[in-house]
This record gives sequence, structure tokens and C-alpha cells, in this order.
Amino acid sequence: MPTGSSPLTTIGFDADDTLWEHETFYRMTEERFLGLIADHTAGEDVSARLLAAERRNLAHYGFGVKAFTLSMIETAIEVTDGRVPASVIGKILEAGRDMLSHPVETLPHVRETLETVSQSYCVVLITKGDLFDQERKLAQSGLGPLFDGVEIVSAKSADTYRRVFSDHGDGPERGMMVGNSLRSDVLPAIEAGSWGVHIPHHVTWAVEHAAPPAGSARFRTIKHLGQLIELIDRI
Amino acid sequence: MPTGSSPLTTIGFDADDTLWEHETFYRMTEERFLGLIADHTAGEDVSARLLAAERRNLAHYGFGVKAFTLSMIETAIEVTDGRVPASVIGKILEAGRDMLSHPVETLPHVRETLETVSQSYCVVLITKGDLFDQERKLAQSGLGPLFDGVEIVSAKSADTYRRVFSDHGDGPERGMMVGNSLRSDVLPAIEAGSWGVHIPHHVTWAVEHAAPPAGSARFRTIKHLGQLIELIDRI
Repeated sequence: MPTGSSPLTTIGFDADDTLWEHETFYRMTEERFLGLIADHTAGEDVSARLLAAERRNLAHYGFGVKAFTLSMIETAIEVTDGRVPASVIGKILEAGRDMLSHPVETLPHVRETLETVSQSYCVVLITKGDLFDQERKLAQSGLGPLFDGVEIVSAKSADTYRRVFSDHGDGPERGMMVGNSLRSDVLPAIEAGSWGVHIPHHVTWAVEHAAPPAGSARFRTIKHLGQLIELIDRI
Repeated sequence: MPTGSSPLTTIGFDADDTLWEHETFYRMTEERFLGLIADHTAGEDVSARLLAAERRNLAHYGFGVKAFTLSMIETAIEVTDGRVPASVIGKILEAGRDMLSHPVETLPHVRETLETVSQSYCVVLITKGDLFDQERKLAQSGLGPLFDGVEIVSAKSADTYRRVFSDHGDGPERGMMVGNSLRSDVLPAIEAGSWGVHIPHHVTWAVEHAAPPAGSARFRTIKHLGQLIELIDRI
């Protein structure tokens, strides 16, 4: 991994579904939620209503488990025309709390890749979501000491990457962002002038869907994090 | 405001109830909550039960409006033995959302004090709470450009102040923290070796109560932010 002539100073990593499992727990909790209210609603497309509530509430709540819990409660009331019993809402609260205490499951190749990359580059965690919960997950993952910086942000825009790659490095042109979301990790990083590396995850939240960037020389896709070092060596 | 011989490099400011009204909105929402469930409960001390839920949930949820909303819903179910109608829970959700869109009310002396202090010192906002909501309030207050740094943290410990006053200045010994909470703003800052300036607010959340530090040479109290510049000039 030679760096003398590397065009890169800083590698940014997304967290949820890039370093550890995330969306799977949301989908499992959604299944639990659908089961909880199945007896109190007739024929509604509850999943679609939940997604609509989540989208609507993004502007109020931002991202994260607490926002998701509040959207589940709102949807439960909505799709049952206010007939959902309080005991069911209590169970939705419980499902949300279970997510917040779920053990962190690091994805394959994460630790060894971070260990290697952090020897030669400034390595920054760049994640959106709930500050409190993201800090918990980072602490529990044991990956914290491998990062030179941690940036928990409310949104990921081109400006976010410009700022972070300047604060932790030599500016966006010498930065690379690695993540599972085209919309949040790849497209705005490329817009900022950085490299954008996409690692598709087997489940992606509908809100994060986007088309890949067309014709960008700084866009790459790899299958898993274990392929990152070879990719960095080649550019 | 001479700085050539000033022992200070960096002034940190708390946000909620130091720069803008905060606890008042929580207490107003609590009143609304008590009104909403009054017909569904008999003789319970609902306020005490809500505070107990908030304390219990701090470890899961952290600080902020979403956490408070979830604790109100939990308390509503608890104190009514699960008899609270879903329509009332819908109104609790609404009360929470209203808090998140409430206009920011800047406290007296804030803008002019920040304008003066930021000419001579590195000025940093250090606040805990919900990332998304704190960013909204800062943007809405129009005070953002007066700060050299913004640190939204999940907890305020002596280590927090050591890190922030090192990242934005010459270390904790040359830092001063200004805020309304003895527990979060003053005591840990003094423990870190910084100055701690207390500005009592007329309402303070029970969880933030603490005794003032005994015998610290770096502890000060002022009545309002308009007295800060004189205080800085004297030390």
C-alpha cells in the first residue's frame, strides 16, 4: 500500500450497513410491528404507510431509531383509525428500545481493512443518524481507536464532505468516501470532488435509493470491504 | 476587552437556556400532556412518573425532544394501566412535533455578548441533546456565524471539555465554559481545569440539579449574559 505518490489523504467510512448491520434490524422490527397491529387493521398496506410517515417525519425528526419508533406509533394510530390499544403501543416502544440495545454486528473484512488503511491514511467515520445511538454502536464495535476522526452529522451533502475532508486532510479532491448508500455516501462525495466507492448492501432503505452517477471518473463499486485496499492501490 | 495578557483562549457556551429558551417549552408541553391524560387517570402523581421515565430512558434515548415524546407516551400508558386511547397518544405525538417546530427565542444580551467576545476569543457552542434539533435551533437563531466551532455532544464530562478546549484553543486551562447547568456546564469544566461560569435560569430540569462547586477559584456566577464581558475582563 504505497502512499508516497497516493492521490489520497483521507478515507471516509459510512457506518450503518458499511461497518455493521443496520437495515436488517429495521426490517426485523418492521415485521414485528406488522405482526403487532395485524389484528387491528384490515387490508391496509401498512408498510407503505409506515414508509410514508418516515419520509414525512424526516424533516421533523431526522434519522435514527427514536424517529423510527415515533413513526411506527403514528402509523399504528393512523391505519387503525385510532383503535389500536395502548398495550400494542407499549409493545412498539419496547421494540424500539430493543433496537437501541441490540448488539453491534460488524460486517466481514471491516476490522482488518480499517487496521491496514489507518496505517497510511487519515481515517474518518462519517455517519448520520442519532448521535447517542451512533456513539453507542461505535463504542460497542471496538473500532473507535482505528479512526482519526468521527463525524456524526444530520445530513450528508457535498458541503459536508468538503468540510470533513478539509478538517481531516487536504480537501475533498484528496478524499475518498466509502459506503453502501449511493444517495448519501457516493453522489454527494463525487459532487464535492472526492472519490465515491459504493459497496451495495443486501438491504437498503427505500429513502436511500438513487441511480449511480453517470460518467464519473471517481466512482467505483466493490462487492465488500475486503476489496478496498486493492482498489486504493490501483488509483 | 484586552486580550494580550488574557489567560483565556476559548469561551464555550451552552445552548439550551443559556442562549435561548428551552426548559420553558418542556414545562409547557408537560402541562399540555397532563391535561391530555387527566381524564384517564385517577390521583396519580403523573409529573413524578414522567420524570422517573425520563431518568430511566436517558441511558436508552439520550437527551432531546424525541426522547421526551417517547417518555410521555410510555408514562401515559403506565399511569392509565393501558387504558389511554390512541387518540390521546396521537395528541402527545403532536405536542412533541410542535416542540420541534417552535420558533427559537434568543435570551437577552446573547447576540451582543457573542459579537463582542468572538472578536477576541475562539468561541465554541458546546451543547448536548438531539443533533438534528440543535442544528435546527442554531440555524434558526442566526447565531451560527458567531461561532468558531460547534460541538453537539451526547454527554458533557470533564473529558469532553478537555477535548473541545484542546481542539479549539490551547487546552482546558485556557478555556471557560458558560452555561445554566451546574451539573453539565460548570462542574465538569472546572474538573477539567477550565473556568466555569454559571448563569442560573428561572427553570432548570430536575436531572440537571447539582450543588455548586466548593472552594474553586475558577467558579463564577453571573445573573445574565450581559455581565460576562466584565467578568472576563476582571480575571
